Amino acid sequence: MAQRYVRVKTSKGQTYYGLLQLTRNIQVLDAPPWLQGQPTDLELEPGSYELLAPCAPSKIVAVGKNYTEHAQEMGTSVPKEPLLFLKPPTSITSADKEIQYPPQSQRVDYEGELALVIGEHCVDCTPKQAQSKIWGYTIANDVTARDLQQQDGQWTRAKGFNTFCPLGPWIVRELSAGARLQTFLNDRPQPVQSALLTQMVFPPEFLVSYISQVMTLLPGDVVLTGTPQGIGPMQMGDRVRVEIEGIGHLENTVVARSALEAP
Amino acid sequence: MAQRYVRVKTSKGQTYYGLLQLTRNIQVLDAPPWLQGQPTDLELEPGSYELLAPCAPSKIVAVGKNYTEHAQEMGTSVPKEPLLFLKPPTSITSADKEIQYPPQSQRVDYEGELALVIGEHCVDCTPKQAQSKIWGYTIANDVTARDLQQQDGQWTRAKGFNTFCPLGPWIVRELSAGARLQTFLNDRPQPVQSALLTQMVFPPEFLVSYISQVMTLLPGDVVLTGTPQGIGPMQMGDRVRVEIEGIGHLENTVVARSALEAP
Repeated sequence: MAQRYVRVKTSKGQTYYGLLQLTRNIQVLDAPPWLQGQPTDLELEPGSYELLAPCAPSKIVAVGKNYTEHAQEMGTSVPKEPLLFLKPPTSITSADKEIQYPPQSQRVDYEGELALVIGEHCVDCTPKQAQSKIWGYTIANDVTARDLQQQDGQWTRAKGFNTFCPLGPWIVRELSAGARLQTFLNDRPQPVQSALLTQMVFPPEFLVSYISQVMTLLPGDVVLTGTPQGIGPMQMGDRVRVEIEGIGHLENTVVARSALEAP
Repeated sequence: MAQRYVRVKTSKGQTYYGLLQLTRNIQVLDAPPWLQGQPTDLELEPGSYELLAPCAPSKIVAVGKNYTEHAQEMGTSVPKEPLLFLKPPTSITSADKEIQYPPQSQRVDYEGELALVIGEHCVDCTPKQAQSKIWGYTIANDVTARDLQQQDGQWTRAKGFNTFCPLGPWIVRELSAGARLQTFLNDRPQPVQSALLTQMVFPPEFLVSYISQVMTLLPGDVVLTGTPQGIGPMQMGDRVRVEIEGIGHLENTVVARSALEAP
């Protein structure tokens, strides 16, 4: 089994990067692994920690319409260049946590995606250089308030709510280029999304190169590579699970976010 | 004169928050002032430090079309709700530093703006609550590659380039609601932008409340409040200066950003 790199919070409130063992013990690292974190003598037992999102990015750069059939289902075509947007770091939540359905929206969609974790400072990189800046891979759900996305034009609000970026549960360093991404809703046996990562219009190293010619990517930053066809709505109480072969699965439940009370 | 809160880097490479004295000495604080940073015995003399942007936000939330006449000059109307977008933290640069003109654009515009600095964790706040979360005020230039903004639809790339968010030079805690914002280009005696902050469609506390119902604002985060009418292009070598009465001025020069060499 590939090494699984995690970030955890202990019951005492401390945050660590670590390696998840088969025993589900965590071997604690002394720094993020992409900053050459080394194993320490500290080991955490199951029940003494909770998994956080596996990195704490300074920014999340995401890409729209990077699978042809998804662009088509949105009634558009694939852009000539990657279409960039940002999700705020406060949108991150972790595996098994709740996605909060905001009162402003009447339609909140899942979007299963491959997430890249950047390992090194990356500015004005060629695709070849960019490949070596991708430290590892994890899973994301680019949760989107579809009605607000259409209403606003800009996607920031629709994709920027708290808990709208489930991320994890861990990072692996290697990924088969032909891995399959699938999204499952509740107990339906058939996936609602299913695609091969090779179906991306712009592959990971191209995306990282393209972004790096705009903004510097920093260690721990996250790039979301776009969602395939099959997007659709979630209801309160739904469970949504995004799976990528060779990584694992990311599951979250949808609950209501409280509305602001009148002042 | 109002107290001026700065962030500086010393010639030895250390970063501090501090108070700028009339002598231009810096009285060093032991933490960001919004986290109750207190004065230390350390004082820095002119020549031993450079000014950085006065905060290091986890996110920059900006607002489009928040002055009626600017919305009109863009050929649109004022939105019914604030129109949010994000600039990445890597877009920040400081007073007197260079704005890099990227090779991807043939039209890069200035946009002078009032910036709010958040002092406290802010989620689901009413406008009244939000007012007390605004710790202070500084100046920003929301630099925009106008051609890419129109080409992409999403504004992330056009507004997200490195150096596209000059911020500073310092933070003040109080600001007259009727203060004037002006932008000057090179040696032209007449401003290219001139407006009263009271001309904003959605005032600061409304913006902060609105954003907090989407995403949690954290101490040190920045909210850009929109630009007034008079936006226009800058050329390489231009000097652009944004002034707000009661704060000061933020001046930057435009230089070329190098293109990526062929691999």
